[in-house]
Amino acid sequence: MFKSLEIGRRIKGDEFDERSLALREQLMRAQLDLAKRDYPLIIIVAGLDGAGKGELVHRINEWMDPRGIATNTFWEHSDEEESHPYFWRFWRKLPPRGETAIFLGSWYARPALLLLDKKIDELEFIRQCQDILAFERALIDDGALIVKLWLHVSKKTQQAQLEEDAPNKQQIRRIPERPYDMSGNYKRSLKVAEELVLATDTPDSPWQLVEAEDRHYRDINCGEIILHALQRRIEADDVAPPEPTETELPPASQQTLLGQVDLDLALERDVYKNKLSKYQLRLQDLVWKAYEQRRSLVAVFEGWDAAGKGSAIRRVTRAMDPRLFHLVQFAAPTDEEKARHYLWRFWRQLERDGRATIFDRSWYGRVLVERVEGFARESEWRRAYAEINQFEAELVNHGSIVTKFWLHISPDEQLARFRERENSPHKQHKITEEDWRNRDKWDVYEHAVDDMITRTSTSRAPWQVIPANDKRYARIQILKSICAQLESALDD
Amino acid sequence: MFKSLEIGRRIKGDEFDERSLALREQLMRAQLDLAKRDYPLIIIVAGLDGAGKGELVHRINEWMDPRGIATNTFWEHSDEEESHPYFWRFWRKLPPRGETAIFLGSWYARPALLLLDKKIDELEFIRQCQDILAFERALIDDGALIVKLWLHVSKKTQQAQLEEDAPNKQQIRRIPERPYDMSGNYKRSLKVAEELVLATDTPDSPWQLVEAEDRHYRDINCGEIILHALQRRIEADDVAPPEPTETELPPASQQTLLGQVDLDLALERDVYKNKLSKYQLRLQDLVWKAYEQRRSLVAVFEGWDAAGKGSAIRRVTRAMDPRLFHLVQFAAPTDEEKARHYLWRFWRQLERDGRATIFDRSWYGRVLVERVEGFARESEWRRAYAEINQFEAELVNHGSIVTKFWLHISPDEQLARFRERENSPHKQHKITEEDWRNRDKWDVYEHAVDDMITRTSTSRAPWQVIPANDKRYARIQILKSICAQLESALDD
Repeated sequence: MFKSLEIGRRIKGDEFDERSLALREQLMRAQLDLAKRDYPLIIIVAGLDGAGKGELVHRINEWMDPRGIATNTFWEHSDEEESHPYFWRFWRKLPPRGETAIFLGSWYARPALLLLDKKIDELEFIRQCQDILAFERALIDDGALIVKLWLHVSKKTQQAQLEEDAPNKQQIRRIPERPYDMSGNYKRSLKVAEELVLATDTPDSPWQLVEAEDRHYRDINCGEIILHALQRRIEADDVAPPEPTETELPPASQQTLLGQVDLDLALERDVYKNKLSKYQLRLQDLVWKAYEQRRSLVAVFEGWDAAGKGSAIRRVTRAMDPRLFHLVQFAAPTDEEKARHYLWRFWRQLERDGRATIFDRSWYGRVLVERVEGFARESEWRRAYAEINQFEAELVNHGSIVTKFWLHISPDEQLARFRERENSPHKQHKITEEDWRNRDKWDVYEHAVDDMITRTSTSRAPWQVIPANDKRYARIQILKSICAQLESALDD
Repeated sequence: MFKSLEIGRRIKGDEFDERSLALREQLMRAQLDLAKRDYPLIIIVAGLDGAGKGELVHRINEWMDPRGIATNTFWEHSDEEESHPYFWRFWRKLPPRGETAIFLGSWYARPALLLLDKKIDELEFIRQCQDILAFERALIDDGALIVKLWLHVSKKTQQAQLEEDAPNKQQIRRIPERPYDMSGNYKRSLKVAEELVLATDTPDSPWQLVEAEDRHYRDINCGEIILHALQRRIEADDVAPPEPTETELPPASQQTLLGQVDLDLALERDVYKNKLSKYQLRLQDLVWKAYEQRRSLVAVFEGWDAAGKGSAIRRVTRAMDPRLFHLVQFAAPTDEEKARHYLWRFWRQLERDGRATIFDRSWYGRVLVERVEGFARESEWRRAYAEINQFEAELVNHGSIVTKFWLHISPDEQLARFRERENSPHKQHKITEEDWRNRDKWDVYEHAVDDMITRTSTSRAPWQVIPANDKRYARIQILKSICAQLESALDD
């Protein structure tokens, strides 16, 4: 795969100057055009040590307008990064639509280096490559244009480069834990590189293999690849089809999962008070224990309007040290959020290891309100099930404990609560026209909930459907369930 | 994931009769329409034992016109199937465009059963799921509509079904090696099922999870899913975009891999004769050894017109027992071949384990002549690199030895050989107008060859570029290389 990238392709000085000038102008124009588009450009610069990745990034910044380009490097890992799931560091660096991000040392670094150092086995390597594919898939489905450059140099050139770089040019050690002398490793690097490229080369985000022996050729070639990608995308968009009218398959039966829930379950006040203090005490201890063990809790609360999410969450947070949790409520996305993938706003809220993040409404809005109200296209909410499963899998694989509650009440109970809100002055703000409108779509929502639970209740992140006609019963069930999940996940 | 498929959704007898009638008519109409389309429908029926997969297949056949539907089962494995790579059995059952194939016991059976029986580990399971994704990807990219049905039943219903089925209904044992009593295994089956569904659920070929407790509900639900998939596809096609004009990025330098080849290499006649008999003898032994060890050889010959492929192949086959090899030449595809994925015609030619298949021209036509002449769209030949790598990986993983030769000559040498062909009566048939036309596109072809070798020369199936200005030298190199690859792959 790489032998044919060692044939000495060169571009001479004068020719380079001339082509560089022309290329620069075209890239600038393409970048201006990108600013008007609703997708970002993501450039990944990867390849062997000594191939001049840093130089190339300089060149791209020189050719394009540095405003509108962010260069992200990941040489040094912050403890912030280390104490979040792996992809968190990349999610937070994603460019908004219309802008460009260069990733020097990208999501590809980890699997490559770990396999090279034999710190992971083939299974883990393949798993990490799959996570990468899922990550890129989500970005591409959201519109992103991804250009992946793989720079190759021969063993001889690598040696020469590294020796030349070492004393003077390198101000910072690039990968602190790795010595410059890669000589014993060259062959193995190539093997790992081939595995990596084969495992992550897809039609939508293909690898571009670039001979980097000659820096002129390397830069011109990469610049043209980027330009070409931008131009092709514009051409493709020009012939994009109108959105097909999507008609959803109505359910073959009106029976639903929620229809099975026993809503008569209730607790007496005395029993409730006893259990409440018992489970709150237990939760308090468990949350500290999770902190000590550096495990984070991710608790998601969804449910019908007026199902009692807020008051249930208060019973949970009351048992937690305020330093240890972060409660996030979601309303309409901000401009910054709208300029990115819909999961970005949830990734950015995740607390560090050892702390709890409590989501009052969550990413499930994608397959509930956005689906029902048509804010998301059918293709968007349909693929969201897999995206969400992947997202939660990353949390769990990182060590987070994910717990998800659907608070279920009957339509009658909801009506009673709506009326009560309207009639009590201090609760009037909690009831809006929208609540009444949502209520009219009960059946449609119920089927959306059904699909959501079927599709996203996985063994690593199961849904708990909580009968909530009786608030006391619901609160105790939730506390009990969180305690049980923490207990089974934490070491004694 | 499966708990919400146990809520007792039912459809009563009268309602079933009524809906069944309507559904049948709509399915028939959709099927008639499908016959005019340029893609096939592939239905996968999978799920737990006792969920009524067989019954459902009967129902589909009853609802649709059995002409134009083929039902494929894989209960019993033929030795033909066992002695080919796993996917061979499915490739040969792929329906032509406009028709339908039902797969009962599909490509999903193997990873599920092997993991259930702990005969493979997680790594192998994930690998097999990746192969499945690549296989389905290739079919979908080629246009296929895939509907994947997963039928779920509760433990209780499964037990009841299996006991009911066992004595009377089952004429043939369905999975001979598996006992009917699955009771100890139910929980584990679900776990494996969840892993399988999560790993292979993609936006383009999503799993449809179906509650199969009630056979009426099950059949209506599945029928509607199939109908809906057909209808949506037609709607989507109606708004399909015109093909974008694809402009290829010209190479940044005119230097090529082939430009590096030393074409002066030659052999004296005496040396040649000696070496020829030496390597032919060695090859003869090795081919028998491969037969004994049940390893198959796949040898691909590509090269410039008049590079001497034919005469080189003759030197190879002469060393092989005719019972042990199959030489295939490729011209234009037949109608049957055109009605299917382009790789189908190569899959069908593969010899059984222990035998050699020699390809005089091959699947690489996709990225050579089809690319250069515009017979394949850019998106098609670009994704072909990954498809071909996947195809060859399946061969190698199955135990085949894959060897690929590009016979390289200079333009001058080609001209001399063309002239010679024109001037000698017995060779005139070998030179056509097309050869001269191809010759005019030498540079374009050269870059296509460059890309092909870079993209598809993998460590498991490397390309050998053979300097062939001197035919004797080329033949010896080829024989030597095949011997070396066989020697290193076979056990002593």
